[in-house]
Amino acid sequence: MNKITLDLSNALSSSIGNENGITENELNDFEEKIRNVLIRVREERAQGKLAFMDLPCASTKEIEDTAEKVLQNEFEDFIVFGIGGSSLGTRGLKEALIHPEWNLLPHKKRNGYPRVFILENIDPYSFSAVLETIDIKKSIFNVVSKSGKTAETISQFLIVKDLLEKAAGNDWKKHIVITTDSLSGPLRKIAREEKISALSVPQGVGGRFSVLSSVGLFPAAMMGIDIKRLLKGAVGMDALCSGEKLDENIASALCAFYFITYKKGKQITVLMPYSDRLLGFGLWFRQLWAESLGKRKNSRESEGPTPVVALGATDQHSQLQLYLQGPDDKSITFIELEDYESEIEIPRSFEHNDFSYLPGNRLEDLIRAELSATRTVLTTNGRANATIRLSRISPDTVGGIIYLYEVVTTLMGYLLDINPFDQPAVEEGKKITREILEGKESPESKEKLAIECVLG
Amino acid sequence: MNKITLDLSNALSSSIGNENGITENELNDFEEKIRNVLIRVREERAQGKLAFMDLPCASTKEIEDTAEKVLQNEFEDFIVFGIGGSSLGTRGLKEALIHPEWNLLPHKKRNGYPRVFILENIDPYSFSAVLETIDIKKSIFNVVSKSGKTAETISQFLIVKDLLEKAAGNDWKKHIVITTDSLSGPLRKIAREEKISALSVPQGVGGRFSVLSSVGLFPAAMMGIDIKRLLKGAVGMDALCSGEKLDENIASALCAFYFITYKKGKQITVLMPYSDRLLGFGLWFRQLWAESLGKRKNSRESEGPTPVVALGATDQHSQLQLYLQGPDDKSITFIELEDYESEIEIPRSFEHNDFSYLPGNRLEDLIRAELSATRTVLTTNGRANATIRLSRISPDTVGGIIYLYEVVTTLMGYLLDINPFDQPAVEEGKKITREILEGKESPESKEKLAIECVLG
Repeated sequence: MNKITLDLSNALSSSIGNENGITENELNDFEEKIRNVLIRVREERAQGKLAFMDLPCASTKEIEDTAEKVLQNEFEDFIVFGIGGSSLGTRGLKEALIHPEWNLLPHKKRNGYPRVFILENIDPYSFSAVLETIDIKKSIFNVVSKSGKTAETISQFLIVKDLLEKAAGNDWKKHIVITTDSLSGPLRKIAREEKISALSVPQGVGGRFSVLSSVGLFPAAMMGIDIKRLLKGAVGMDALCSGEKLDENIASALCAFYFITYKKGKQITVLMPYSDRLLGFGLWFRQLWAESLGKRKNSRESEGPTPVVALGATDQHSQLQLYLQGPDDKSITFIELEDYESEIEIPRSFEHNDFSYLPGNRLEDLIRAELSATRTVLTTNGRANATIRLSRISPDTVGGIIYLYEVVTTLMGYLLDINPFDQPAVEEGKKITREILEGKESPESKEKLAIECVLG
Repeated sequence: MNKITLDLSNALSSSIGNENGITENELNDFEEKIRNVLIRVREERAQGKLAFMDLPCASTKEIEDTAEKVLQNEFEDFIVFGIGGSSLGTRGLKEALIHPEWNLLPHKKRNGYPRVFILENIDPYSFSAVLETIDIKKSIFNVVSKSGKTAETISQFLIVKDLLEKAAGNDWKKHIVITTDSLSGPLRKIAREEKISALSVPQGVGGRFSVLSSVGLFPAAMMGIDIKRLLKGAVGMDALCSGEKLDENIASALCAFYFITYKKGKQITVLMPYSDRLLGFGLWFRQLWAESLGKRKNSRESEGPTPVVALGATDQHSQLQLYLQGPDDKSITFIELEDYESEIEIPRSFEHNDFSYLPGNRLEDLIRAELSATRTVLTTNGRANATIRLSRISPDTVGGIIYLYEVVTTLMGYLLDINPFDQPAVEEGKKITREILEGKESPESKEKLAIECVLG
């Protein structure tokens, strides 16, 4: 059974005291406040203004047909070009739902699916390294950009198109699947004119809310992930995200945790999954949270909790000291698994008192005990924390938690009275980038204080 | 030539105004304040109390001999077991200094060096996945734990020791190299009794300051990294880290940026390298900064800037909106490369006005223009930022920047009047973990507020 549980016990004043903890009164006030937001969401959704909420019920036929057709060509490598919202969701799905060492598995163990490379950045060194590694004649590229003109993605596309043309002549087109706006933008135009396979980003769905559309689902299908179940999980979650009462609405309840602690000065939102497989999900959350909520309200006021992703148990050895004894400016959300799907046990050897407590336990018991211990010390130190428990990592629970955070982010934006769907600040930088590349001088001023260290 | 330049121009009041910017007076005050700290550092160093500062001049003979001996056995896979300070530095060196797709390269292109796996976490799913991927009979394991009793690392060791014994009998010992305290701890005892190859973590060097000791250097040598040049870079940097004047001491100058902006309310320290290869270095920094500086001073006061690692240009599409328009609580440090060591050019194709500015430029020009544009908009928005410029990524510059941050962290700790070398808060959690695994009931209290979502 696929199940997601939210536990807010360690955020309540009865656990961590009145200063940090959420009181009964605060919860009641919040329930009052969120009521209008939930009405607004319901209305906007009915008007088709919250298109991301329609994705879980959309047909996946075109996506699956395209993947099936492409997979028949038995490409050895599948490469995604996309940045930000065009890749982070895909990366989250990949890390959660396929083998952690996928690209090292022999073809057969991948059930015939290709190796997968997600190229976000334009660091020429690592880009060249991937090009060296793959056989371009046996590769299929998914070029993902909603606007169809993202500089990084277009540059990658132009480089590879050139290489493909040299290697395969006019057949280069068979090595490309474009994912872009259904109507407008340069990539759509190219797809139409050159008759290249193309999928659509549904109208009204912004990049960081698009993972459950063709943006994330086509790559997922190319890795053999059951995309119908991903959506099914989101649908199941949706049913628990509209009730008026906090204890019937998991999105409202999670939002209560974030909103109330933020107002109490927790400017940093730490998400700490105890699973390597959810690190990619964390990075997806990091964009969703930062870009949706980091906004200027007026000339004096800004909003925006800073998202931080920590990985349990690893980051107990890196960040926990700060979380426990540093400034009390963080809320912490653990993601816990009920089942790690591994029976690996710690065997007995070298009788030594310092680790006699380990043998006989499973590795899973150790990571679970560490989470429990970390949660305990945070709570006894009065640090607000919440836990999201997944029965296990499956397409259903991953689809469910993705959708949950999309709704929570929307609610949070509305409560903070900002628009969670735009990103007005990043346009200026794009303009300057363009001007520099067109040969205008960089607008940067001369160095005023610089120290040089020659290392020989 | 290997060179590191620090540019603080965009942090000065003459660039970003008096409220956020650092004024002449503040710099003078800081120079005054840091003077005593530099004297303290010089004295403690002379007394042998800052052992990490002696590492760059230490002999590498034992490390190199051990690596050479092990490499003669032509193992196919090299696996590092270690967590926190026992692995993050190694990961930083690996990502910076070997091929980004190392494990996918054919043996010959790796110049005969083994594939590399760094296993920090104890997530049983990903741990099993690596065990599935390697051939244990052709694998060499480096077990790294200064105390010799780290639960995660010991568990990994016990599991693999058992598997090796089953596969190779008494020869299991030839598959292990232990790195631990030179005198004490269970791993040292085991190494002695079982006659297993063992390297020493020098006395007085804490985990997060140990990358330039056997902890990081042995794995580096196992990947063919020139460890002598790493240390040479650190030595070169050391020469620029003791002067009294800010413009003669790159560590003091960088510390001035962090200390003054922190005191002006920049609670979040963003490190943003524009290079995929420096992401691992960023994660190493993240531990160094958080664990060294996140401390309780007394019952009311805490210190600790929260480190955040962002990756350019990728995170312009994820975090930049928040950095530009969110709360002004961050200082941002860019790491820039003068040379990306790739000539890859963006070719002309599909005449389209929306991206006509790209062709003819190298990919390197694009990433550089994006950095310049991002820095410009942050500066015009009054956001304090600094830039560290590396001539290129080489063992020398990587050794140099590692050492630079170790010194800066030390100075920062002394200025904040805390001990940057301890981590008192994390012991309690270890105790509870042990108790849970020994069968005591978890100390966690009953759920007070939990919402369950069954997804079917």
